Amino acid sequence: MSDKLPVPDKKGVLFLPLGGCGQFGANFTLYGHDGAWIAVDCGMAFADERLPGVDVVLPDASLIAEQRDRLKALFITHGHEDHIGAVAWLWPQLRCPIYATPFTAALLRRKLEEHSYKGAQPKITIVKPNVRIDAVEGWGVTYLPVSHSIPEGNALCIETPVGRIVHTGDWCLDPAPILGAITDPAAFSALGDAGVMAYIGDSTNSDVRTKHLTELEVEHGLTEVFKTAPRKIAVTMFASNVGRIISIYRAARACGRQVALAGRSLDTMVNCARETGHIDDGMRFLSGDDAADMSDHKVVLILTGSQGEDRAALSRVARGVHPSVKLKADDVMIFSSRAIPGNETAINEIKNSLLGMGVRIVTDRDAPVHVSGHPVRSDVAQMLDWLRPTIVIPVHGERTQMEAHASLAREKNVPHIHVPMNGEMLKFMPHGVEKLRHYALNFSAIDMGRVVASDSLPILERRKMSFNGAVFASLVADRQDGSLLDIQVSAMGLLDPDDARDARVITELEDAVAERFETLSKAERVSEDAGVEAARARIKRFFRDAYDIKPLVNVHISLV
Amino acid sequence: MSDKLPVPDKKGVLFLPLGGCGQFGANFTLYGHDGAWIAVDCGMAFADERLPGVDVVLPDASLIAEQRDRLKALFITHGHEDHIGAVAWLWPQLRCPIYATPFTAALLRRKLEEHSYKGAQPKITIVKPNVRIDAVEGWGVTYLPVSHSIPEGNALCIETPVGRIVHTGDWCLDPAPILGAITDPAAFSALGDAGVMAYIGDSTNSDVRTKHLTELEVEHGLTEVFKTAPRKIAVTMFASNVGRIISIYRAARACGRQVALAGRSLDTMVNCARETGHIDDGMRFLSGDDAADMSDHKVVLILTGSQGEDRAALSRVARGVHPSVKLKADDVMIFSSRAIPGNETAINEIKNSLLGMGVRIVTDRDAPVHVSGHPVRSDVAQMLDWLRPTIVIPVHGERTQMEAHASLAREKNVPHIHVPMNGEMLKFMPHGVEKLRHYALNFSAIDMGRVVASDSLPILERRKMSFNGAVFASLVADRQDGSLLDIQVSAMGLLDPDDARDARVITELEDAVAERFETLSKAERVSEDAGVEAARARIKRFFRDAYDIKPLVNVHISLV
Repeated sequence: MSDKLPVPDKKGVLFLPLGGCGQFGANFTLYGHDGAWIAVDCGMAFADERLPGVDVVLPDASLIAEQRDRLKALFITHGHEDHIGAVAWLWPQLRCPIYATPFTAALLRRKLEEHSYKGAQPKITIVKPNVRIDAVEGWGVTYLPVSHSIPEGNALCIETPVGRIVHTGDWCLDPAPILGAITDPAAFSALGDAGVMAYIGDSTNSDVRTKHLTELEVEHGLTEVFKTAPRKIAVTMFASNVGRIISIYRAARACGRQVALAGRSLDTMVNCARETGHIDDGMRFLSGDDAADMSDHKVVLILTGSQGEDRAALSRVARGVHPSVKLKADDVMIFSSRAIPGNETAINEIKNSLLGMGVRIVTDRDAPVHVSGHPVRSDVAQMLDWLRPTIVIPVHGERTQMEAHASLAREKNVPHIHVPMNGEMLKFMPHGVEKLRHYALNFSAIDMGRVVASDSLPILERRKMSFNGAVFASLVADRQDGSLLDIQVSAMGLLDPDDARDARVITELEDAVAERFETLSKAERVSEDAGVEAARARIKRFFRDAYDIKPLVNVHISLV
Repeated sequence: MSDKLPVPDKKGVLFLPLGGCGQFGANFTLYGHDGAWIAVDCGMAFADERLPGVDVVLPDASLIAEQRDRLKALFITHGHEDHIGAVAWLWPQLRCPIYATPFTAALLRRKLEEHSYKGAQPKITIVKPNVRIDAVEGWGVTYLPVSHSIPEGNALCIETPVGRIVHTGDWCLDPAPILGAITDPAAFSALGDAGVMAYIGDSTNSDVRTKHLTELEVEHGLTEVFKTAPRKIAVTMFASNVGRIISIYRAARACGRQVALAGRSLDTMVNCARETGHIDDGMRFLSGDDAADMSDHKVVLILTGSQGEDRAALSRVARGVHPSVKLKADDVMIFSSRAIPGNETAINEIKNSLLGMGVRIVTDRDAPVHVSGHPVRSDVAQMLDWLRPTIVIPVHGERTQMEAHASLAREKNVPHIHVPMNGEMLKFMPHGVEKLRHYALNFSAIDMGRVVASDSLPILERRKMSFNGAVFASLVADRQDGSLLDIQVSAMGLLDPDDARDARVITELEDAVAERFETLSKAERVSEDAGVEAARARIKRFFRDAYDIKPLVNVHISLV
């Protein structure tokens, strides 16, 4: 079977998630019909220790790059990194019109400006909500505003000749959000009345059975905590949650405090929100430096780094190395955020350090100081009641949450439900869904400033060296008679040449390699390849026998 | 100030936790009085990605090793790895009598047998509960049985001329445990009546406000889940929880199923429990192989690997590579365990894989299939009411939990409370506690089969190479005139010599280093040190300028 994408025909709508389902959380979804493709979102994800030295991973765009002429548009639902973070990196492979709302476009432009492209430059078309965009002949896309934890969240209504698809992006229900639109019951139930073929929906909190707080309740929760704080207050949160910044601002003002921002991403978000009218001019923020000069009880600091990121403000405050923000005993640190799975250890360390300083910590277990921007089970049920789709495709979240979403859809008697995997291509038809094939996807990594396959040799080598070290041997032999003139071995990450016992082991190893080299024929000794191979094999055997370790081995032979 | 331990005087009891408080969870505590020391527990902890290639970390025993002649005894409270796992490794530094109950001793002997020691061999004295051991002249230690998630958990009552200390080890309250003793209200309240100077207590669940299930309720919970399972049932749990193994066995038998064990540590635990009378001869277990031949509805499998460990049975089952155990759609996988912080990602991946196969997953969020072996807040309150200590020292747990324990003690009007850090030496006196000093502790790692400092050069190098790669350069120069005869550079973890673009970069780098070498004076060129230094600096600059990366650099110069 070819590893290329088929050309979409008229019989159905092809659906292919290249990310966003399960373990790889960067959203990038293709829809295809009648010779054309569109893409929805193009996000990044954070790498973990399995890719040492790599911070950011991206979806693999190679499948669609081969049909770039048929890719008619990229629609961005909202500005979270897992929805826009890969656009600037993958642009050379996509080069299609980009659609986004003003705030999302402002964020995206800042990212695009950090890159320079040969040839076609990216162009963003600003989208108006509730207005159909005829990006592809015969089918259109309409942005439907939804509540979410960033300004200008949108679901997409994708209308094709075969049927209507609702792709939610990220959303929640908040009847009175601090900022932006509500997820409009009338709009979604009208779609349901008109008929929805397929629903592709956010599963992140589908297994959460508690009621969803509103952002206003969070504002009240914060105000209560602020009221009782005797000294400095700091809050950490996701910088993109501009509604939360406003909540904190109002809670702070209600307690006679000003608000200071510490962390570059907060400045970026506030600037974009101001440019696009989400924060009005009357709302003024101090810097961390300004706050350092103020009385402790007059300020609320907002810090980046709620996920424990090493270089963010919170981590530096916890380590006592932030240039302007210091916390001490009886200061209050509020975590107005949740831990993204995988970050628990880093966050715990920060909490431990702060507690060690006597700082009081408040999390959403102690008070209503955070609400997720994703729909809980009852919200998903509501959406299914509005839309009454023929097909439900749970996406976004780990498999556990996607399965919970599917089981809810089964309770609602949805006729066709499929929990997809990344790379699984489905075909939507008015009467159901068909699984076409499963593409084996790699994903990409940003390494040394460029996009590479996540299994590229340098990354694999770094991972191997991190566990097994690296041995480097250099041999010099006489070009004429093959006699060994010099040998030096270093075992980085394994043996310390300044340690007497290790130094003896290095000498033994050099002797063993020299001895092996000298058993080679003269012809082999004056052929670099044979010498390299023999030395490498001897070194591997040495470490296997002595330590049961398989280091990366590199041998240089110079013939002089 | 000296970094040595003082010789304990008669005025108080010295307390020094070398682990077990906060971030470093391996328990190892010293008590000193009147010229003598005793140690309580000597555990290990698991390393994380910050020490790549290292699985296990140990407390640093160097402080006490210098006063080994004054170390009169090591008392092991129970057999969990974080209480006994370092004994076999640190024995050469301790060499004191070891005390333990029969089950703990059986586990410890198996560990000691894997090592060989020069000189004095470890000797374990078997302890009887409730009988005072006069290990040190003038003061004694009594083992007090407590409920815990392993057979033979014990608190220690340490009686000194200055006052009585109760050190709980790990414990919980279970009025009717499946196996072993209850935490006896009469015994602990009698100690309180007699007077307790200091209480050193388990904080792990001090911030948990829900009621503690009993192990019998877990057995009922398991039975209910087993009853409704149509096909194969597998359960993962901590192998050392022998009471849970019995619960599973009884629940399985009640549903007409046999029990099979998959994973070496389960065999070890069951063998030790059988030897010491905790599992009777009538209770028979199958192997994973046996179970493979049985009907699906006739067997319950117990699997090791509840923490997502790569090589354990559960992980291999989830990856479909276990030799005898296979799971498929509608099989039930029960997590009768909790995630230790830091293991969430690995556990989530296993759950995702199993869900992808259609396996149904049951965790303690779905049904009462697990209970922790540590005291919740109300249990800690009960213990404080029994003991009424003058001094409370919360240990064991992260700082968050230790602080919650301290705040509970404050509510109980305990006069002296101190949340310690590892390395903080306190002095207990009948009227209070004094902080003497804070030792800067390192900790040790098992690396290449030996105990080394966790900041030893090879470990630091591996960590550095994992992010920044390693560059090896070999230069050959003429010993007489210093002319450069050959140069080869490899950039492992950075540049792929088989990639055309990278190969060009390597050539550029070789040229740059050669050029730099040739600017050296003849005297420098025939001195290895000057050449190595110049080449290293040039390589570092090259990678900083091109990629903003600081690789580990190793240069060999051969003069021929």
